[in-house]
Amino acid sequence: MSVKAPDGFEQRVRDSFAQQKAMATIGARLLRIAPGAVDIELPVRDDLTQQDGFVHAGMLAAVLDSACGYAAFTLMPAGARVVSVEFKINMLAPAVGERIVARARVKKAGRTLSVCDADGFALSAGGEKLVACMTGTMMCLMGA
Amino acid sequence: MSVKAPDGFEQRVRDSFAQQKAMATIGARLLRIAPGAVDIELPVRDDLTQQDGFVHAGMLAAVLDSACGYAAFTLMPAGARVVSVEFKINMLAPAVGERIVARARVKKAGRTLSVCDADGFALSAGGEKLVACMTGTMMCLMGA
Amino acid sequence: MSVKAPDGFEQRVRDSFAQQKAMATIGARLLRIAPGAVDIELPVRDDLTQQDGFVHAGMLAAVLDSACGYAAFTLMPAGARVVSVEFKINMLAPAVGERIVARARVKKAGRTLSVCDADGFALSAGGEKLVACMTGTMMCLMGA
Amino acid sequence: MSVKAPDGFEQRVRDSFAQQKAMATIGARLLRIAPGAVDIELPVRDDLTQQDGFVHAGMLAAVLDSACGYAAFTLMPAGARVVSVEFKINMLAPAVGERIVARARVKKAGRTLSVCDADGFALSAGGEKLVACMTGTMMCLMGA
Repeated sequence: MSVKAPDGFEQRVRDSFAQQKAMATIGARLLRIAPGAVDIELPVRDDLTQQDGFVHAGMLAAVLDSACGYAAFTLMPAGARVVSVEFKINMLAPAVGERIVARARVKKAGRTLSVCDADGFALSAGGEKLVACMTGTMMCLMGA
Repeated sequence: MSVKAPDGFEQRVRDSFAQQKAMATIGARLLRIAPGAVDIELPVRDDLTQQDGFVHAGMLAAVLDSACGYAAFTLMPAGARVVSVEFKINMLAPAVGERIVARARVKKAGRTLSVCDADGFALSAGGEKLVACMTGTMMCLMGA
Repeated sequence: MSVKAPDGFEQRVRDSFAQQKAMATIGARLLRIAPGAVDIELPVRDDLTQQDGFVHAGMLAAVLDSACGYAAFTLMPAGARVVSVEFKINMLAPAVGERIVARARVKKAGRTLSVCDADGFALSAGGEKLVACMTGTMMCLMGA
Repeated sequence: MSVKAPDGFEQRVRDSFAQQKAMATIGARLLRIAPGAVDIELPVRDDLTQQDGFVHAGMLAAVLDSACGYAAFTLMPAGARVVSVEFKINMLAPAVGERIVARARVKKAGRTLSVCDADGFALSAGGEKLVACMTGTMMCLMGA
């Protein structure tokens, strides 16, 4: 999808992401912002794991959801807010390695609702492996 | 659903939950364990929020997913492991208040796959409000 | 959920359902219309099956989706249109028997988006069995 | 994904598809079978529509689900059966035009569970337009 983002989109994403305290808590950071596409990185930290030592599905969901939300947000007008309506995530392989990279892109941008896809990759010395995928519906709220 | 859980189910859930370091990181704790049903509580902490000050959808997903997984786990035989195959969550209202309670129950228990529902309620002085709902598929792994 | 539906909701559902030619093609019919709740019945016909002789998941999805849409529609104002934004369905058991009944109810009614749940039961001489469950997001469109 | 399919996969898909009577009822036909990828075509027929004259979401779901199932099936060993565990579909634009093409591919092939994506395009004189997307979990059953 070739898309055009409104002026200032990159700064708006950075400003909003900086206000997501949950992202700081889990150590996530913005890797890349482009029109209709955002990547977020999560370290594979011991304090983010489930009972088998893999990154908890909720932590994966957190970064994939934020990546989807901000991918949609890049295409929204100045003054808009973005909220997640719903998302679905499949866990495809154990999330182990050094870090997780969530790569989201807008599949359909609408005035009110946008649909995004995100893939989650586990990166390690051995390369990268797809560990999760998400589809989410993001909503644009104006005013308020 | 009237269900019977294998002996020792409650302790197995407590032991496994204690190993989910992500749950400790976000301050979640087990509230209730019954055959086919588990409740988990999450405090509404500032460090778990998104840009509007609501609990981040990923943090909601984390406790609803763990509640679903352990609801399914109560009905699995000793020696089993449980992993999340996939889940879908809808955000129904801003997650604000004092604490979130995730209430999960098994909708269909299978030998390999179980399907669970979970509702997430925000509790405050004014009562409780439904803020999210999840359906998830949980897998029983034996051996290894 | 105790809800109030706008005057004339039942007739609006009947009129709209009558225009869903896909429902006639598969033999589905409205069973019950109440504020925030709609039931639809589908016969278990040979021409609706998949390769094992069970009702095809898409046919189950069709009646659960219509039931969700019309459950949401009962609470929408006169002049509104309803469309499905998205849904997720889990198949819980083989859909066999004499007929399928989809029972949908509104979980959260919003001005623009409503979230509905639906269960699909297979009915036969032996009683009823839960064979599928859905969560869907329905959108209210005014004007046009 | 570069994948290898077991000998005879194409014929097994054709044989199984021919047994899906629901596909004949709605006029769907197989367009393409490749390792890990299947396309199915649906005519835009008046008797498949919802109340606005668009193809009903359940009919879209039926062809996207069959395409996902058979994409997964191409990679399963001889003697396997495939069933849909669950799927989620987003409707992205009104499904109008001359025909719908569902294009599915395997995202992760597992011994028991496979995860597939499918896009649904509406084709008309004016070109093709993305109208729906699905992610589904497909299960391989051996024996019986």
